Amino acid sequence: MGLKITVIGSGNVGFHLAQRLHESGHRICQVFSRTPTKAAHLANLVKASGISNLKDISLEADVYLLAIKDDSLKIVTEEISFLGKYNKLIAHTSGSVSSAVFENHFGRYGIFYPLQTFSTTKKVDFEQLPFCIYGNTPAAQDSLFQLAQSICPNVYAINDEQRSILHVTAVIVNNFSNYLYGIAHDICKDQDVSFDILKPLIHETVRKIDVSNPQDVQTGPAVRGDLDTIAKHIDFLKKYPDHQALYQLISTGIIKQIKERALLDK
Amino acid sequence: MGLKITVIGSGNVGFHLAQRLHESGHRICQVFSRTPTKAAHLANLVKASGISNLKDISLEADVYLLAIKDDSLKIVTEEISFLGKYNKLIAHTSGSVSSAVFENHFGRYGIFYPLQTFSTTKKVDFEQLPFCIYGNTPAAQDSLFQLAQSICPNVYAINDEQRSILHVTAVIVNNFSNYLYGIAHDICKDQDVSFDILKPLIHETVRKIDVSNPQDVQTGPAVRGDLDTIAKHIDFLKKYPDHQALYQLISTGIIKQIKERALLDK
Repeated sequence: MGLKITVIGSGNVGFHLAQRLHESGHRICQVFSRTPTKAAHLANLVKASGISNLKDISLEADVYLLAIKDDSLKIVTEEISFLGKYNKLIAHTSGSVSSAVFENHFGRYGIFYPLQTFSTTKKVDFEQLPFCIYGNTPAAQDSLFQLAQSICPNVYAINDEQRSILHVTAVIVNNFSNYLYGIAHDICKDQDVSFDILKPLIHETVRKIDVSNPQDVQTGPAVRGDLDTIAKHIDFLKKYPDHQALYQLISTGIIKQIKERALLDK
Repeated sequence: MGLKITVIGSGNVGFHLAQRLHESGHRICQVFSRTPTKAAHLANLVKASGISNLKDISLEADVYLLAIKDDSLKIVTEEISFLGKYNKLIAHTSGSVSSAVFENHFGRYGIFYPLQTFSTTKKVDFEQLPFCIYGNTPAAQDSLFQLAQSICPNVYAINDEQRSILHVTAVIVNNFSNYLYGIAHDICKDQDVSFDILKPLIHETVRKIDVSNPQDVQTGPAVRGDLDTIAKHIDFLKKYPDHQALYQLISTGIIKQIKERALLDK
């Protein structure tokens, strides 16, 4: 029961998605990239035809997946809006753009959002990847849900509002924690200490939340109320004023959280 | 070549350390806890005698390991300073207290600092755990280094200054990233979205830095300069003013970092 699919965009998401769909028995009709060599490269991998002009998009696919930058979604949707007249199903892979972008052009549309951080060079583990699906009609939702299930075991029906919450929290857990790692990496490099020493700690911290509410396993000077250590750290960080401000803000946040939880427990 | 060791403290660190030393062929002479039942419980596990009064500390051990709270280190060191007269080797397991705490009482002393987050209920993976060692003399350093190597493969010679840098960066990568997970958990719960959907993303973020400098793999709206999404997220977070301030500060930090890196590349 393979579908005919056209993938518009060959960045990190389009690149891995097209290949996974192809490997899972769907037929990729066309892949689009503004860069002809990128389109040709991906097309070759998934036995599709590569196009670099949206005017060349054909009617042969059942589903059109837009894996492009958020700020191009509106304009590309308008450019291919003729597909709506043929009752084609369209979906985008963005975490933050509302499905309403399709509203005036398509009768059947939705969201096909893989919640993961993609790198072109690294293979994506679709077994671990949560797919967030939304369809504007029960039938559209059903089609996208089944399509997602055919390439990945963890599929969730998520409406626009829930998706925007997942997106902001994804930024917090992924981009922001990576920023913290970057700060630590920077300081270690600067002070000639190996950042590698910290890696097992980073892994263990993440393993803990697989089984626990993060707030229940919070450790460190702030949670212990160890103000001497906090003062020592803040003093050390005076060489790094931005990091010092962040240290202060998060420590205050942890202390506040502990107090609030203590009140709730009463 | 097992050593005779006395472990002072039976909290998270002392509890796991005593057992690992015992299992690795060392003889644990005594374990100390202020709470007699805790001392007896751990002593029983490692075939030692449990004591709850520091006056009962015997001279039979070669090495005395202090696994106690930072703010008790000074006073406990004074209480057992008579051991210094017998040329005993002493070390503490703290990430932040200077080895100078031992200076006036002991001739041979050092640091035996396992850089990891410990929970009493969870088995510690000593194969993954980095041990940071310091000795005030080459011989003391050597003894502590060998002792650490006998229970764990990753041992680093780290002086007081380097250790304080590792401690502040450990707080940043562990306690602070866990705080970010807690924020996301809170928002998800509040808005009725499953936090579980975010877990694969959290794991992937951490896997990336095993092979990359975190700053090289930074993703998200701030790094893309996607100010619309940042504004949308900040607007959403007005229900959570503390989290909003943090979102703003970290996004500003990421944008600044990108600009600085762009300048460096020129």
